[in-house]
Amino acid sequence: MVSSLIDIAQQTRQASQSLASMPTDVKNGAIAAIARSLNDSAAEILAANRADCLSAQALGISPSLFARLKLDEVKLASAIAGMEEVIRLPDPVGIVQLHRQLDTHLVLQRITCPLGVLGVIFEARPDAVMQITSLAIKSGNGVILKGGVEATQSCQALVLAIQRGLAQTNIDPKVIQLLTSREETLALLTLHDDVNLIIPRGSNSFVQFVQQNTSIPVLGHADGICHLYVDRAADIEQAVAIAVDSKVQYPSACNAIETLLVHGEIAPLFLPRLATALQLHGVELRLDKVGFSLLQGGGWQLKLAEESDWATEYGDLILAIRVVDSLEAALTHIQVYGSRHTEAIVTQDSQAAAIFRDRVDASGVFHNCSTRFADGFRYGFGAEVGISTQTLPPRGPVGLEGLVTYKYHLTGQGQVVSTYSGANAQPFHHRDL
Amino acid sequence: MVSSLIDIAQQTRQASQSLASMPTDVKNGAIAAIARSLNDSAAEILAANRADCLSAQALGISPSLFARLKLDEVKLASAIAGMEEVIRLPDPVGIVQLHRQLDTHLVLQRITCPLGVLGVIFEARPDAVMQITSLAIKSGNGVILKGGVEATQSCQALVLAIQRGLAQTNIDPKVIQLLTSREETLALLTLHDDVNLIIPRGSNSFVQFVQQNTSIPVLGHADGICHLYVDRAADIEQAVAIAVDSKVQYPSACNAIETLLVHGEIAPLFLPRLATALQLHGVELRLDKVGFSLLQGGGWQLKLAEESDWATEYGDLILAIRVVDSLEAALTHIQVYGSRHTEAIVTQDSQAAAIFRDRVDASGVFHNCSTRFADGFRYGFGAEVGISTQTLPPRGPVGLEGLVTYKYHLTGQGQVVSTYSGANAQPFHHRDL
Repeated sequence: MVSSLIDIAQQTRQASQSLASMPTDVKNGAIAAIARSLNDSAAEILAANRADCLSAQALGISPSLFARLKLDEVKLASAIAGMEEVIRLPDPVGIVQLHRQLDTHLVLQRITCPLGVLGVIFEARPDAVMQITSLAIKSGNGVILKGGVEATQSCQALVLAIQRGLAQTNIDPKVIQLLTSREETLALLTLHDDVNLIIPRGSNSFVQFVQQNTSIPVLGHADGICHLYVDRAADIEQAVAIAVDSKVQYPSACNAIETLLVHGEIAPLFLPRLATALQLHGVELRLDKVGFSLLQGGGWQLKLAEESDWATEYGDLILAIRVVDSLEAALTHIQVYGSRHTEAIVTQDSQAAAIFRDRVDASGVFHNCSTRFADGFRYGFGAEVGISTQTLPPRGPVGLEGLVTYKYHLTGQGQVVSTYSGANAQPFHHRDL
Repeated sequence: MVSSLIDIAQQTRQASQSLASMPTDVKNGAIAAIARSLNDSAAEILAANRADCLSAQALGISPSLFARLKLDEVKLASAIAGMEEVIRLPDPVGIVQLHRQLDTHLVLQRITCPLGVLGVIFEARPDAVMQITSLAIKSGNGVILKGGVEATQSCQALVLAIQRGLAQTNIDPKVIQLLTSREETLALLTLHDDVNLIIPRGSNSFVQFVQQNTSIPVLGHADGICHLYVDRAADIEQAVAIAVDSKVQYPSACNAIETLLVHGEIAPLFLPRLATALQLHGVELRLDKVGFSLLQGGGWQLKLAEESDWATEYGDLILAIRVVDSLEAALTHIQVYGSRHTEAIVTQDSQAAAIFRDRVDASGVFHNCSTRFADGFRYGFGAEVGISTQTLPPRGPVGLEGLVTYKYHLTGQGQVVSTYSGANAQPFHHRDL
């Protein structure tokens, strides 16, 4: 099993090496050929998905997982249209980031290049196959995919169609490979020599498992505990609208808020307005003692928050609420409980906003807008492979730009370092070109 | 022990948080104050170093380690001058990398910010303390230093002088901390919450140990097995000069070559010239069978290379030599044995150079110049914390730019995502400002 996986990984690496230096039009042509092949294979793909859906229903999977697994004509067409969007994005490979003459005829360039091979492990979302494939090819990377077990037949039909499309181009179809067993997933995490980046997309516990079980760099995030802090100088109407959007617009998204912090001075005015608005959307409120006492008896359904609420990503129509006595206290709460994903402040006080922006350590720090904007499409990146909450770049929503690295090219005419060393060292002139 | 280390790490993190938003002139002023304090404390520092040197000699440390440990007036003055160089480098913090209007009054910025706290573990090189401190302060990062046990008194004297300098500025002296025990080093590797990047500087086995024993990102490289490939279209005189420089100019440097590959067509002409030049410098030659037979009987001291020679970083006046029958064979050798540090080709054939440049996966790929140029100073970065051979950026010589990350700031006037979703979704206009 594992030895066959090593073969697959080495084939992917080899195929990706020739993909790496393909010109933009060849890569775009390949994505277009894949899109055509997916269109031609639509019936086959939808039949495979129906088989997956039937098995999944027989096993009683949750309605939300079923919704993600199900592929209909509209969803398939929209995923194929998304691939064509990627054709229009600029090629991230071959960008000269630095061009400097160190000395006469000794020229340094820093040029972007693909990472190599991506290992992408995702849940039962067959449409992810199409998005990831187009991003991988455009960025010149090979990709080893492992979909959720529920989506096996759908993924197989999709990858077959993709490979049929590639077979009509100059790109080796082996740049895309599909794994189907759980053992292979575990083995994939050990292939340092052939896999350059692991992208896990799934539950928090799954991402944590991946992070803890590989020494290959992992791109992504486990938790998404985002906060909205309503400052004492907030516009109350604006704060209510932002809180509602950040919580209810798509509660299971990682960029939805889990906890709202509100300054004590504005809480008596703000909280009743907020509670009324949120309960219209069926949001359960879990308040600290101060917040609870402010709303008690007003006719709202309330719960007292426990310590564990501050550390919980509900992913659901539940909001924890805490009254804080200062911006400083809000910053401390976010530092302790935040997951460095996206944090927002609502305030008309530009100094408070500046302090918040400087002090909060997160990939996104927002002022007077919804946390739900934290997304590659909304940022204008066209598509994203995920959102990273790690410290080092790439951070935040990661699009094509995060799927490349760079190398330094130095070109000379026989220069040696001894010329530039010692007592009579010739100086460098370091002139940017 | 470990609990006191957690205290130290949290103090460093707190101190680094206020350093993070300090303006450039305050940070430059602090580096200047440190330089003055080091000058004022020179006698004390040199006395501490003499004590370290005496103990080290009594324990019989190697001459090369002793040379790195020893600090005299010239070396100290040059390290202090190096700190002043860092003052002149541009501030890497607060650079706007992206500035885009997503919609009217909804503005995205991507701005560089410090990483947080660096954990730097280095061998007996007290001058590293000064270089790292100035780079950390300029990039807005706190730093926890752990020097080699041989340099304990020197490092203590240096850090005391640095903290005395900082005490005269607005920067909390706790941004720089020194650990002195081996147990603390191990514990440092576990502090994910308070340390954002580990920079190990020492032997290959030490760096490997660090890489395998922490889940904190590690910047650096273990092996430095660099190759020079002499193509069949090489200018022989140029190739000999580059080979000599790449091997003998500083053989223990990570960017010195360990193996020379030469095309079979040029080998009969090139190898005798190379052997003569290298033996003048006392370089031992270890050749594959073909190379050995080409030089045999010519009066040179030769050894037959073993398989293990291709995978050895000698760090010494030894060179492995292999004759290959094609550029492709050279690329395969480099892929198998290279450590992705720096690889060079000598050729007058621009197509061969282009293939080499595209196909070699390394942080530096050089054409017609010495591998010894792979260095932050020579690239014009002013100073470097090390050279990274990992795939993801920062890669190659890492200066100030590699010690920062970024965050996304989004500023609105109450915008919510529901406006941009669904059937009547308002479009984004994504206009770069």
